[in-house]
Amino acid sequence: MAYYGFLNGQILPADQLTIGTTDLGLLRGYGLFDYFRTYNGRPFQWDWYWGRFTNSAAMLHMSVPIQKEEAYRTVMTLLEKSGGADMAFRFVLTGGYSSDSISVQQPNLLIVAEELPAQQLIQYERGIKVILDEYVREMAKVKTTDYKRVILLATAIQAAKAQDVLYHKDGEISELSRSNFFLFKGNHLITPNRHILHGITRRTILHLAESDFQIEERPVLLSELYDADELFTTSTTKHVLPITQVGELTIADGLRGERTKYLQERFGELVGNW
Amino acid sequence: MAYYGFLNGQILPADQLTIGTTDLGLLRGYGLFDYFRTYNGRPFQWDWYWGRFTNSAAMLHMSVPIQKEEAYRTVMTLLEKSGGADMAFRFVLTGGYSSDSISVQQPNLLIVAEELPAQQLIQYERGIKVILDEYVREMAKVKTTDYKRVILLATAIQAAKAQDVLYHKDGEISELSRSNFFLFKGNHLITPNRHILHGITRRTILHLAESDFQIEERPVLLSELYDADELFTTSTTKHVLPITQVGELTIADGLRGERTKYLQERFGELVGNW
Repeated sequence: MAYYGFLNGQILPADQLTIGTTDLGLLRGYGLFDYFRTYNGRPFQWDWYWGRFTNSAAMLHMSVPIQKEEAYRTVMTLLEKSGGADMAFRFVLTGGYSSDSISVQQPNLLIVAEELPAQQLIQYERGIKVILDEYVREMAKVKTTDYKRVILLATAIQAAKAQDVLYHKDGEISELSRSNFFLFKGNHLITPNRHILHGITRRTILHLAESDFQIEERPVLLSELYDADELFTTSTTKHVLPITQVGELTIADGLRGERTKYLQERFGELVGNW
Repeated sequence: MAYYGFLNGQILPADQLTIGTTDLGLLRGYGLFDYFRTYNGRPFQWDWYWGRFTNSAAMLHMSVPIQKEEAYRTVMTLLEKSGGADMAFRFVLTGGYSSDSISVQQPNLLIVAEELPAQQLIQYERGIKVILDEYVREMAKVKTTDYKRVILLATAIQAAKAQDVLYHKDGEISELSRSNFFLFKGNHLITPNRHILHGITRRTILHLAESDFQIEERPVLLSELYDADELFTTSTTKHVLPITQVGELTIADGLRGERTKYLQERFGELVGNW
């Protein structure tokens, strides 16, 4: 079964979709995207994802060329044509075709259905290792297409037997390359509030956690890693994934913590009933 | 007459060339480029441009999939098919098609012939206005495709009746959005030596100027604008373009300076005899 995509109104199997070479996303990195998945055949937190996507577009001075309802219908059409099982959707908006290779004229909108990345279930029990990188994303609130930094680090991540990178700058932690960062200290659930992409799974977890834990959204210092009880990261595809090692530092006893496990279960219930 | 392009071995009219939507340049901003022009039917400073392009590729951990000689032959083929008049060439190298939307597998190489941008001749006599922007390009030495910053500033540049932006950070000037910066103070020709793309026209001008002026390649302070005698910018398409206004500051008497005019003439002779 092929996955389907949509480009400016045209629907085709995704591997047959092509874009012209004067696109400003390609030539000038002028693009943004969003990415969400379905559970039980329904887009998860669609309203929030759509809101973030249109907000990213506004921050890059572009408007999304279709309305929310049409976007939703397109997603459902692609879902059906692609076989109907749970899958991911990528929305990409670029500066469009440009006659002078720099001026934005009419944005290009691409929507593609994609296979969900395979989960390595063992990581949800054992946790992952991340390495530190001193960096902060430009325009962190906007889901731009700029991922040069982590792609450049791919070899270093692999060499360290790590799974991702944790960005920090001026002693302050922001986020992983494609997911948000959380820290448990006792009953306090702490997460950075700036220099980050405001993740939808992050938001979902904050909702789920607020009745059981004390939430602190605030700048988080690198030094807080040393006496943290538990760390985890959240994203659309990672859900709630424990972090048990940061560089050479083992977090607490190096095992998934009970509170993280509790949130994994709450999240599992939420999406199971979606 | 159509302009032609080359994508991974295929040659087509540029407006028929398309790229698949899993390209990492498009999806992840993982791309770099170079851009040069011909004079009298010959690529100007080809060796230097090719060297910079392959160097940019190495810094993004990619290798260019064709050799220099084949690239040159391709350029000459595209030149001939596109009508043979003087034109520009854009080389774009991206992370290629990616099955997981993040891992680099095999780079995509695009080479397109383009019409030279129209020159506004009056600007070469009167000079241009630029506005200041506090910013420094990430990986400034690499000609990446990331031009979000200046595209975002397009409205501000237009509102100020300016033509471009001059980047500075921590009191230090680096470059314009797509061209290098020079300052004359008396007989001293001064140009930033860091946080810049090492322009080929910049290098050419430094060669042309060294017998007549005292060259200083060094950090240049924003405060040096106040008593500068002349400013100009250089690039493949701008050649030697005077800057007579920076924001609300008029440089010297606001007219093109004699030394800048002298370098314009020397550059004109060089390319005329190319």
